[in-house]
Amino acid sequence: MKEIRDIALALWGGSSPCKCGGGHEVCLNCKVCRAGIPDRIASDGSDLSSLIDATILKADAVTTDIDQLCITALEYNCASVCVNSIFLPRVKATLCPPVKTCTVINFPLGAASPEAVKTEAQTVCDLGADEVDMVHSISSILDRHVDTAYEVVAGVTDVCVGHGALLKVIIETCYLNREQIIISCLIAKKAGADFVKTSTGFGNAGATAENIALMRATVGGKLGVKASGGIRTREQAIQMVAAGANRIGASNVLMLLS
Amino acid sequence: MKEIRDIALALWGGSSPCKCGGGHEVCLNCKVCRAGIPDRIASDGSDLSSLIDATILKADAVTTDIDQLCITALEYNCASVCVNSIFLPRVKATLCPPVKTCTVINFPLGAASPEAVKTEAQTVCDLGADEVDMVHSISSILDRHVDTAYEVVAGVTDVCVGHGALLKVIIETCYLNREQIIISCLIAKKAGADFVKTSTGFGNAGATAENIALMRATVGGKLGVKASGGIRTREQAIQMVAAGANRIGASNVLMLLS
Repeated sequence: MKEIRDIALALWGGSSPCKCGGGHEVCLNCKVCRAGIPDRIASDGSDLSSLIDATILKADAVTTDIDQLCITALEYNCASVCVNSIFLPRVKATLCPPVKTCTVINFPLGAASPEAVKTEAQTVCDLGADEVDMVHSISSILDRHVDTAYEVVAGVTDVCVGHGALLKVIIETCYLNREQIIISCLIAKKAGADFVKTSTGFGNAGATAENIALMRATVGGKLGVKASGGIRTREQAIQMVAAGANRIGASNVLMLLS
Repeated sequence: MKEIRDIALALWGGSSPCKCGGGHEVCLNCKVCRAGIPDRIASDGSDLSSLIDATILKADAVTTDIDQLCITALEYNCASVCVNSIFLPRVKATLCPPVKTCTVINFPLGAASPEAVKTEAQTVCDLGADEVDMVHSISSILDRHVDTAYEVVAGVTDVCVGHGALLKVIIETCYLNREQIIISCLIAKKAGADFVKTSTGFGNAGATAENIALMRATVGGKLGVKASGGIRTREQAIQMVAAGANRIGASNVLMLLS
């Protein structure tokens, strides 16, 4: 944690965290820093479906919406179906490999207490979630409470590792500046997350290629980067993958595959 | 529960639940049904502040926002300060009687599993919440899963009663028709809630006087009714109280009191 605190201090003090030592403010266009960005998709997007988390998280979703989403995800072999946890048992019972069951916690405000987030993680893992998308503690990042932000992610990591569940940490980039996005990614990586993810889809903006590239440059090649929020076309999805994303969250899967 | 299921069936089948037996579709203008609506506020709104839950729930709130809210609530003797649970320990340590500490759970989507909502209730009560505002299980109401909706509230009631905490159930009226609002209120009342509340402030509409009157007519005079979402002027607040509300949620307290 001292390393992250030092980086945070340096960033908030105005210095650069560029891993290549080249003194860039961020590493968007630095070959050294961007080494390891996955290039897992054909240039025509032909294998796009396997990167998609088919997602419905709106408050007024009903069972028929969720069932249709599962059918589509199974038909196209999507990576997962991502739903709120009230639908988790139904989705778990509906899906079969290779499509995973994904849910969200601390969602969408990222403002629950560390204790509440950890118990929510335990509950959804007990219900059978294969993947957990949690929102970073947004106020902790804005307040520069690095230790609290770390504590929230680390608590969930403990639970997910125990259940073999994959953990994605949602940065909610729309509320953060570039330095805060970098710090958020470093905290998530240090705390043991498997992915960082741009957006909940409930903030005032979604994924951008620029933020994907920034997040990929920050976490390196081994962690996943998920683009989500406002991705409605095939072109947008391919652009996100080109920028460094290896997972896409989308509610209208057919629009991305058509 | 059979009683509520029968009412739900009658409603969804097109009959009327009017308590006076007068055959109204709803009881907005029925003196019998509206008996017991509290009239706890002076006509000039001079004691409005004691009905206000001073509220900040936005994702990008920071500590200084919360501290300022507490100062205002203490200065004007508001009913409570309502925050996301990450701020709960700070607010609890800052406030003193008569201002209560309030937080939200299953918020704002109303879509967590019953197990997750109950454990979240336990966590926030352990952290010292005096009042808990929970979102009703919206999809369960839309899907007509009356038993699940009841289970979610009843689980939280158990926890709140054990801690002496007051429970408000947020109906999130913007996603529901009049029959669904009535059923939601009856479920909340049957499950032991202390208040029903109109809105999270994150849906596509907030409180209306019509919905307040409908909710008051449904729950009777003993339960509380809280108006929340989009209440930004003194006139709006007084209108809500006149329609039957005895608690007001507002983020800009000074606007309501000026």
